[in-house]
Amino acid sequence: MTNKDARTPASIQDDMSEEAGKSIGWHKAYVEGSRPDLRVPVRQVHLTNGQSVTLYDTSGPYTDPHVDTDVRRGLAPLRENWITARGDTEEYAGRPVRPEDDGIKHTSPRGGLRNLDAVFPGRPRQPRRGRDGQAVTQLAYARRGQITPEMQFVALRENVSPEVVREEIAAGRAVLPANVNHPEIEPMIIGKRFLVKVNANIGNSAVTSSIEEEVEKMTWATRWGADTVMDLSTGRNIHTTREWVLRNSPVPIGTVPLYQALEKVDGRAEELTWEIYKDTVIEQAEQGVDYMTVHAGVRLPFVPLTANRKTGIVSRGGSIMAAWCLAHHKESFLYENFEELCEILAAYDVTYSLGDGLRPGSIADANDEAQLAELRTLGELGRIARRLNVQTMIEGPGHVPMHKIKENIDLQQEICDEAPFYTLGPLTTDIAPAYDHITSGIGAAMIAWWGTAMLCYVTPKEHLGLPNRDDVKTGVITYKIAAHAADLAKGHPGAQEWDDALSDARFEFRWEDQFNLALDPDTAREFHDETLPAEPAKTAHFCSMCGPKFCSMKISQDIRREHGGSRAEIEEGMAQKSAEFAASGNRVYLPIAD
Amino acid sequence: MTNKDARTPASIQDDMSEEAGKSIGWHKAYVEGSRPDLRVPVRQVHLTNGQSVTLYDTSGPYTDPHVDTDVRRGLAPLRENWITARGDTEEYAGRPVRPEDDGIKHTSPRGGLRNLDAVFPGRPRQPRRGRDGQAVTQLAYARRGQITPEMQFVALRENVSPEVVREEIAAGRAVLPANVNHPEIEPMIIGKRFLVKVNANIGNSAVTSSIEEEVEKMTWATRWGADTVMDLSTGRNIHTTREWVLRNSPVPIGTVPLYQALEKVDGRAEELTWEIYKDTVIEQAEQGVDYMTVHAGVRLPFVPLTANRKTGIVSRGGSIMAAWCLAHHKESFLYENFEELCEILAAYDVTYSLGDGLRPGSIADANDEAQLAELRTLGELGRIARRLNVQTMIEGPGHVPMHKIKENIDLQQEICDEAPFYTLGPLTTDIAPAYDHITSGIGAAMIAWWGTAMLCYVTPKEHLGLPNRDDVKTGVITYKIAAHAADLAKGHPGAQEWDDALSDARFEFRWEDQFNLALDPDTAREFHDETLPAEPAKTAHFCSMCGPKFCSMKISQDIRREHGGSRAEIEEGMAQKSAEFAASGNRVYLPIAD
Repeated sequence: MTNKDARTPASIQDDMSEEAGKSIGWHKAYVEGSRPDLRVPVRQVHLTNGQSVTLYDTSGPYTDPHVDTDVRRGLAPLRENWITARGDTEEYAGRPVRPEDDGIKHTSPRGGLRNLDAVFPGRPRQPRRGRDGQAVTQLAYARRGQITPEMQFVALRENVSPEVVREEIAAGRAVLPANVNHPEIEPMIIGKRFLVKVNANIGNSAVTSSIEEEVEKMTWATRWGADTVMDLSTGRNIHTTREWVLRNSPVPIGTVPLYQALEKVDGRAEELTWEIYKDTVIEQAEQGVDYMTVHAGVRLPFVPLTANRKTGIVSRGGSIMAAWCLAHHKESFLYENFEELCEILAAYDVTYSLGDGLRPGSIADANDEAQLAELRTLGELGRIARRLNVQTMIEGPGHVPMHKIKENIDLQQEICDEAPFYTLGPLTTDIAPAYDHITSGIGAAMIAWWGTAMLCYVTPKEHLGLPNRDDVKTGVITYKIAAHAADLAKGHPGAQEWDDALSDARFEFRWEDQFNLALDPDTAREFHDETLPAEPAKTAHFCSMCGPKFCSMKISQDIRREHGGSRAEIEEGMAQKSAEFAASGNRVYLPIAD
Repeated sequence: MTNKDARTPASIQDDMSEEAGKSIGWHKAYVEGSRPDLRVPVRQVHLTNGQSVTLYDTSGPYTDPHVDTDVRRGLAPLRENWITARGDTEEYAGRPVRPEDDGIKHTSPRGGLRNLDAVFPGRPRQPRRGRDGQAVTQLAYARRGQITPEMQFVALRENVSPEVVREEIAAGRAVLPANVNHPEIEPMIIGKRFLVKVNANIGNSAVTSSIEEEVEKMTWATRWGADTVMDLSTGRNIHTTREWVLRNSPVPIGTVPLYQALEKVDGRAEELTWEIYKDTVIEQAEQGVDYMTVHAGVRLPFVPLTANRKTGIVSRGGSIMAAWCLAHHKESFLYENFEELCEILAAYDVTYSLGDGLRPGSIADANDEAQLAELRTLGELGRIARRLNVQTMIEGPGHVPMHKIKENIDLQQEICDEAPFYTLGPLTTDIAPAYDHITSGIGAAMIAWWGTAMLCYVTPKEHLGLPNRDDVKTGVITYKIAAHAADLAKGHPGAQEWDDALSDARFEFRWEDQFNLALDPDTAREFHDETLPAEPAKTAHFCSMCGPKFCSMKISQDIRREHGGSRAEIEEGMAQKSAEFAASGNRVYLPIAD
């Protein structure tokens, strides 16, 4: 089954299509809820000892052999009935898609109006929003004491009671990003009481990559465990790329609307206006974007605070807004129009990710005045957003040395009323470009242990280039490690079962089980086979590290076998059994060629 | 210079041989001490802005174009005069090398006695030891108030006063591993007041790899920053492999003598005796091994404490001693003969690395009774060793979840009188075989911040196979990141200069400087070129991440340029200059093809 078990989209399908469930390895299963349309996907790992382990699964229908997926058709609208049943939303004509939405110049021959069908071949749809502009957010429902199907789904997924989910959302300590125009998602929750989540960034740029690549990066990222995906496209076809990503994504999609707004004014920050920005937000909300990064905390008086920094402003959104504020010598139009923006987001249930546009871009700038001034503003804006029923999380750094990490999360929790913290790393040193998934994985694990709810991954290409498919996988795997290490340190119920199952397999030389339980089964198997390729080695009671002559795990087993299981038995049996052991001891060693 | 700058042994030689120093990139330099034979190697990085940055260098003479190295001849005996000048050692015939030292059976046709010349073609040498078995250790000298050339070398290397070095060694808070039979090393120090060090394990096994490979792994590991190297060979040619590694190593070499002793009894733990072990220690001490892992803390009464563990005993040395104790139902011969062992080590200045044979091998077993019982014994043995003037460090785990890491270092420092802690990771989760350099890099950075003096690297092959050359590099780079992140968090003087220099280069778009200052210049350059290969991109004021249209760093620079350097100037200038900025703003954007 070695080949069949390779974790590529195609081969998983193969693996699954033949008697899924019976095959050693893993298969997609569902935890059934209180109603037929509540089916929570899980990854069921089958062990050679007959047991099985159930793991959280973000890979969507793509890993279910019984679902036939087609990127041109998009995923089934899982939540559609839940949304319509609430009866508080209405479909409407929506904003016409314009050529400039895809960065096509007005003069371009490719110009002319288009409708969504042209943008995406899948089922025609009209956008939906709250009737009479009312807030149709999970936060509003939670406050009314309503437990939505989305909350029930999440409760099953996190193995907690629906009431806990409702309470955390109502208190603003957790968000459930779920735009009414993105019915395809499998609901998930972001909050410190729940499993630590990981976001993967994708997105083409003016320089490179295509629509197909971005859709593939999204499915690839979720296959390896990304809980949400941000589309940071900045080049051509922004609107169309986003539409394809949304229609095919089983996880919430986040964006930075400012990037597209800037494209609409040909990259001239000073030409941005509230109207252009607002129109872009509505455009994206109608498509189904689940959360948006808004850099409303970059205020005019804070820009000078960055003057003496080593690396100034490193956030694109932050520097765009800083440039605008300076060009007009006016307060940020995002800050000035924040309440109106809240009303728009509330009508689609778009979640805020209040951006840290002034985050430090180097160890030298960590926890400085500019960063903290902005954080205090984000706390203030978060209170306004929640008052207007908009779900809100707060973004965090960045580059921070280890001894300054805890201060970040503690200040954020205090200033922002425990709103979910969503951090980029942080990177714990600046000296290792090409390894910033590691410099930041260290900081990410620590800050998540201390309370960060979601980690934005960093790939090996950070500071150097756009991530390719391999970089996306490396970034996601590294961050799943950081997130799980944090779940363990937080004592999250059930987190250690995964470690225990793998360590049992390791101790009992169940190599295939060790591979299948691994975060990356392919690479684990490949590394083992590099030195001991033969199939027998998969059951051998040794590995290439110590060789057949002496294996510490093996002798530990013999100690246990020879002297009974429990400590008492061993102490009692040691004396008498020592002679017997001397004889049996040789059984430890397999013959070795001379 | 792009090609010339590739960081492979060959090309470095090329790079250097032509006007080293003038070439952009880096070159080997020396900090001159109070006497001509005190020359401390450094890596001098030359920046395009005319400045240069000096970095700690472990790569030895191999990166000095003016030194002609030959692995068959070995390195020059840098310390020989220092050692002889002390007049407290004597050369002697030494123990004859026996075929079984290389794992060759007595019956083997290849049998028969050999001398060192046959083992290594380099200059003939006789072993040296303390006259009349006296302690010729850096600890003994430090206690007498003597500041040795080794201490002066280290003081220059760490940029501290020689007296601080002497005090830390005298107090047992630091060790300077330097066997009198390993004059080739460039002295280094291990202690929490100094830079965090990284050890790389090499070693062939019964299953794979050769002498040449191991020597190459050693030079490769030190090139990337390994401060010490442990030769954990277990198969054939153990003695000869070690001799080649020692004669060519610019860094201290550590071993686990028990591994070779076990080979001498064909892997039958119960057939081990104190005499065979002692003979092996002397054999290795005469060759010049600088520190030895001794599992004297694995006592008979502790073995049953491992019975109910998830992964029993995972240390090879630990399980060998446990097997011996059970087979004979006797107390460990290492524990029983510890004082005699101290006297042997003191006569060669071999440093103890008291092994944690009962370290946890899984998250479930972390900080358990077996581990702590052994730690208390290591504290007791450390006091005996220091009384007998043997330098001593203490080994630590292993697998430990983040919330239990600090307890490890705090207990060790308290129980072991602040003796240097030397930890393997720890791994913060069990679920990621093939990525354990990362699961452990997280724990390593944290425990080093809290006081661990040296980190034993873990490669991606941990739990799966023997590391190859690439794995060694990945392991070393990952651990250099962890060590440097810890130096930053500890506020080690000068540590942040490296980060600052790189961040300045990043902010000023000095791409070549960013590459040359990187921990791994090759990979950083390669990743950048993947998306923007053209040479002009090396000076471009943008990268493929944001593209030419908008770059946050660039606009930060413009903000600074347009509004003067300081915060005051900016505040004062903002209003008047905003119009001017609007015009100049467009200069931010380079033309983009439509």
